[in-house]
Amino acid sequence: MVKDGDRVLLYGEDGSKFILRVVAGAKKSTHLGLIEFDNLIGKQFGDRISIGKTGKAFYILPPTYVDDIFSMKRKTQIIYPKDSSYIIMKLDVKPGSKVIDTGIGSGAMCAAIARLVGETGKVYAYERREEFLKLARANLTEWGLADRVEFFLKDISLGFDHSDVDALLLDVPDPENYIRQCWEALKGGGVLGVVCPTTNQVTAVLEKIYDLPFVDVEVWESLMRQYKPVPGRLRPVDRMVAHTTYMIFARRVNSKPSSYQLEIPSRPDNSKQNAEEV
Amino acid sequence: MVKDGDRVLLYGEDGSKFILRVVAGAKKSTHLGLIEFDNLIGKQFGDRISIGKTGKAFYILPPTYVDDIFSMKRKTQIIYPKDSSYIIMKLDVKPGSKVIDTGIGSGAMCAAIARLVGETGKVYAYERREEFLKLARANLTEWGLADRVEFFLKDISLGFDHSDVDALLLDVPDPENYIRQCWEALKGGGVLGVVCPTTNQVTAVLEKIYDLPFVDVEVWESLMRQYKPVPGRLRPVDRMVAHTTYMIFARRVNSKPSSYQLEIPSRPDNSKQNAEEV
Amino acid sequence: MVKDGDRVLLYGEDGSKFILRVVAGAKKSTHLGLIEFDNLIGKQFGDRISIGKTGKAFYILPPTYVDDIFSMKRKTQIIYPKDSSYIIMKLDVKPGSKVIDTGIGSGAMCAAIARLVGETGKVYAYERREEFLKLARANLTEWGLADRVEFFLKDISLGFDHSDVDALLLDVPDPENYIRQCWEALKGGGVLGVVCPTTNQVTAVLEKIYDLPFVDVEVWESLMRQYKPVPGRLRPVDRMVAHTTYMIFARRVNSKPSSYQLEIPSRPDNSKQNAEEV
Amino acid sequence: MVKDGDRVLLYGEDGSKFILRVVAGAKKSTHLGLIEFDNLIGKQFGDRISIGKTGKAFYILPPTYVDDIFSMKRKTQIIYPKDSSYIIMKLDVKPGSKVIDTGIGSGAMCAAIARLVGETGKVYAYERREEFLKLARANLTEWGLADRVEFFLKDISLGFDHSDVDALLLDVPDPENYIRQCWEALKGGGVLGVVCPTTNQVTAVLEKIYDLPFVDVEVWESLMRQYKPVPGRLRPVDRMVAHTTYMIFARRVNSKPSSYQLEIPSRPDNSKQNAEEV
Repeated sequence: MVKDGDRVLLYGEDGSKFILRVVAGAKKSTHLGLIEFDNLIGKQFGDRISIGKTGKAFYILPPTYVDDIFSMKRKTQIIYPKDSSYIIMKLDVKPGSKVIDTGIGSGAMCAAIARLVGETGKVYAYERREEFLKLARANLTEWGLADRVEFFLKDISLGFDHSDVDALLLDVPDPENYIRQCWEALKGGGVLGVVCPTTNQVTAVLEKIYDLPFVDVEVWESLMRQYKPVPGRLRPVDRMVAHTTYMIFARRVNSKPSSYQLEIPSRPDNSKQNAEEV
Repeated sequence: MVKDGDRVLLYGEDGSKFILRVVAGAKKSTHLGLIEFDNLIGKQFGDRISIGKTGKAFYILPPTYVDDIFSMKRKTQIIYPKDSSYIIMKLDVKPGSKVIDTGIGSGAMCAAIARLVGETGKVYAYERREEFLKLARANLTEWGLADRVEFFLKDISLGFDHSDVDALLLDVPDPENYIRQCWEALKGGGVLGVVCPTTNQVTAVLEKIYDLPFVDVEVWESLMRQYKPVPGRLRPVDRMVAHTTYMIFARRVNSKPSSYQLEIPSRPDNSKQNAEEV
Repeated sequence: MVKDGDRVLLYGEDGSKFILRVVAGAKKSTHLGLIEFDNLIGKQFGDRISIGKTGKAFYILPPTYVDDIFSMKRKTQIIYPKDSSYIIMKLDVKPGSKVIDTGIGSGAMCAAIARLVGETGKVYAYERREEFLKLARANLTEWGLADRVEFFLKDISLGFDHSDVDALLLDVPDPENYIRQCWEALKGGGVLGVVCPTTNQVTAVLEKIYDLPFVDVEVWESLMRQYKPVPGRLRPVDRMVAHTTYMIFARRVNSKPSSYQLEIPSRPDNSKQNAEEV
Repeated sequence: MVKDGDRVLLYGEDGSKFILRVVAGAKKSTHLGLIEFDNLIGKQFGDRISIGKTGKAFYILPPTYVDDIFSMKRKTQIIYPKDSSYIIMKLDVKPGSKVIDTGIGSGAMCAAIARLVGETGKVYAYERREEFLKLARANLTEWGLADRVEFFLKDISLGFDHSDVDALLLDVPDPENYIRQCWEALKGGGVLGVVCPTTNQVTAVLEKIYDLPFVDVEVWESLMRQYKPVPGRLRPVDRMVAHTTYMIFARRVNSKPSSYQLEIPSRPDNSKQNAEEV
């Protein structure tokens, strides 16, 4: 049941979306008409509310993470769900994980990690620019996630205050300059993720990674394509995002390999190689 | 520190990967030579172990979810990380979520969800074929996740035993036949995810979805492309996965919309529309 | 040397493009300033002309086909170069080919074919709507290609006036209704190409194709991605065309196969199978 | 009607393909049985021939360019149709064009160009390695295209023997070393095409291009995806080509621009900008 103070997503029958916090007695004007918050209180999620005499209606939904980041206040480019979801899986984030996120920008990725590490995990959020840190903290607070995050206003060229973290996401304009600091912060076997938009940066980051004890180095990009959900005329949309970022992953080990395996071994296709104990 | 009974990923310097459970006194033969488990015990994760006199070496890493599913025992096609990561984000899975997964196949997706719902959440896993249910249960047990999952050997055409779940993933050969049952099991505002490989099935599923109270219907496909991680010769790999599945998402509401918005509203590009309270 | 009456592409240093016909004594106003045509006459292609006192400049280039179709007058969606180039190769268009193009829309595809069939080939252009036929004829005339095209204002449900054509491109709103007529018009071994935007249409067209003597049936789609051509910051553009059309190809034979090979045989990877004569 | 000496494509009902030259009295053994060439002579293209008593059958088709290159004898990687078709359109190849192709490798691209330039055009084919030149000449001769090609066994670092060509395709291991030579060979407004597989090479080539008088610089890649042509179960194939080459295009002008427009101007979406004469 919707209560005073709840955050809700209002989904218009025209496909429009508004995220807002219910405030008893307050109102909000939208292109579909005036919403009186008192009409929301006591409703069930999934209920439909008509707007004044217009015949227009909204559904009351709980906001998802994807809803949240597309309507958050932001000053920076965010990592899109197509990328953030894959990064989170590759970084093996789960309840209890300790993860460094830097730079945090407007906090979208920080939130994606914080919501999954749960009460027992922690996000160490490093950011050099105070205005971003403030905005990110405000966004995390709005989403009820700030208590899982420790914020640090710091230039990471001096290194991180943490070590033995399970995973680290590096999202800064010059990632190639901080790979050693990342290695120092990660636990043995921990996962490094780096995002960068240009091929030149991917090359520069890979060179630094191969100078240090890392293995299982991978570079990926994601192309998600949406379809018009029309049963009788099913087809992709006309235009799509062509590029956001390359994603580099590597695992921190304690000493350098004797040589590098730069070709990609093909994934085993079943469990046959998970072989017999002697 | 690695202990007797730990699950470890051995990452060979040639890029090969083995996941196994450390058993004091046991051995395992690999293409790089014989591994004596007693040599692993007491090592740190990230350490390098040389194999006999061959000069070959393995690194000891904690297995990630992605490592696990590519070496698991399986009898069915699994949902690939490129898709499962996005599905999990769209289903808004997080600590505390109650989620239905059906059919569970070999348990890969069930595990992906179970690890994120944490101690306070729950996965209700429905499967019609006993051999799959047994295999999935064995895999979940191996991964230490079985206590977060309740297994049901059941034909879902009779409906689910649960209602008010936060999210539901439908992965069966004929998904179009179970959309009403899914609607009944979901809470108001809960998210339905359907995976199916053919365009004809997408059409059939969409028709059923539009017959019921669902909104925010989306269809997606994911193309992930890997690069050869060679700094001076950076380029994509030669071949990639062209298709696995289409992903359909919709949110359960409590009454049908008066009309459907079948075109896709463009995402707001910033928070401007997150408008002023009156 | 540029002469009075030549068609030229003016390529501005700001990346803008104008295609126009040189008319002695005339002028054209652009956002970079006024162009006096007399300044073009006598210049070489590739020369740079400064505009008045602005310091801005244009280069004089011969227009290519791709330049032409992106600045042509049109009333219909055109087939994009990413698709038209592949269609032309699959239809095996070359000097001397006889090809049917229907519907011709604004003439872009008709022109692409006409320029390649040369003086010895011919395009038979069928169109039902007079306004499109007029526009296409005007465009073809402007490009100097009209003498290679015979235009027919006709409803193709009545069949084509030609048979034994080498190739046929079917680009109409309901292609599934004309597959028999296409079969009748094609020579033995001739290639049919069908373009259609939805998966439902692809299914409908394939069903009709399998009812008739066709072999070597293929369905394709093309995703072309452009890069920002910045050496030190090489990366794809932000957004791309996600979808234009599916392309279906089949070859007309004289009698139906006894059964269909619906799986795609993998292409031979070398000439080994091009085997020994006995 | 099929005659002694014709080249034919035999298309098996199982989807297999053989290209061969009809030789009266000869035979060819295939996995479907023995083919007696005398049974082909006098048949129509599109006819079905049964093989011995097996009930298996082949169709007799004229080979297309795409058929030819996938069964040609080759010693090098070829440019795939997805790329070669687009390159040909961007290079604006048509009857009468004069085009340089270098290196020619096994001759696939050379043939693609030669078949389109017709009797009135010409391909100047430069190759440094004699074995490739011999193979390419043999392939071109087999396809009846050798008279449109002039072959040069030459190291292009010394420059080309031609100038004022309409277009030039550069396909060598170190393309960044020959951009000046290409500029010298092209006519004003002529189109340069460069293919190279790595992002590092794209960067190196772009740097050289910007040192010389070129405009309209573009970088593209093509992802073609095939579908299983099954009407009731329409879906993409499981795996696809992820990468072959990047394609760089630029137009030769006679003097350098004062500055470069490195961002990509959006294509005009209609002919409105094809503006009014003053």
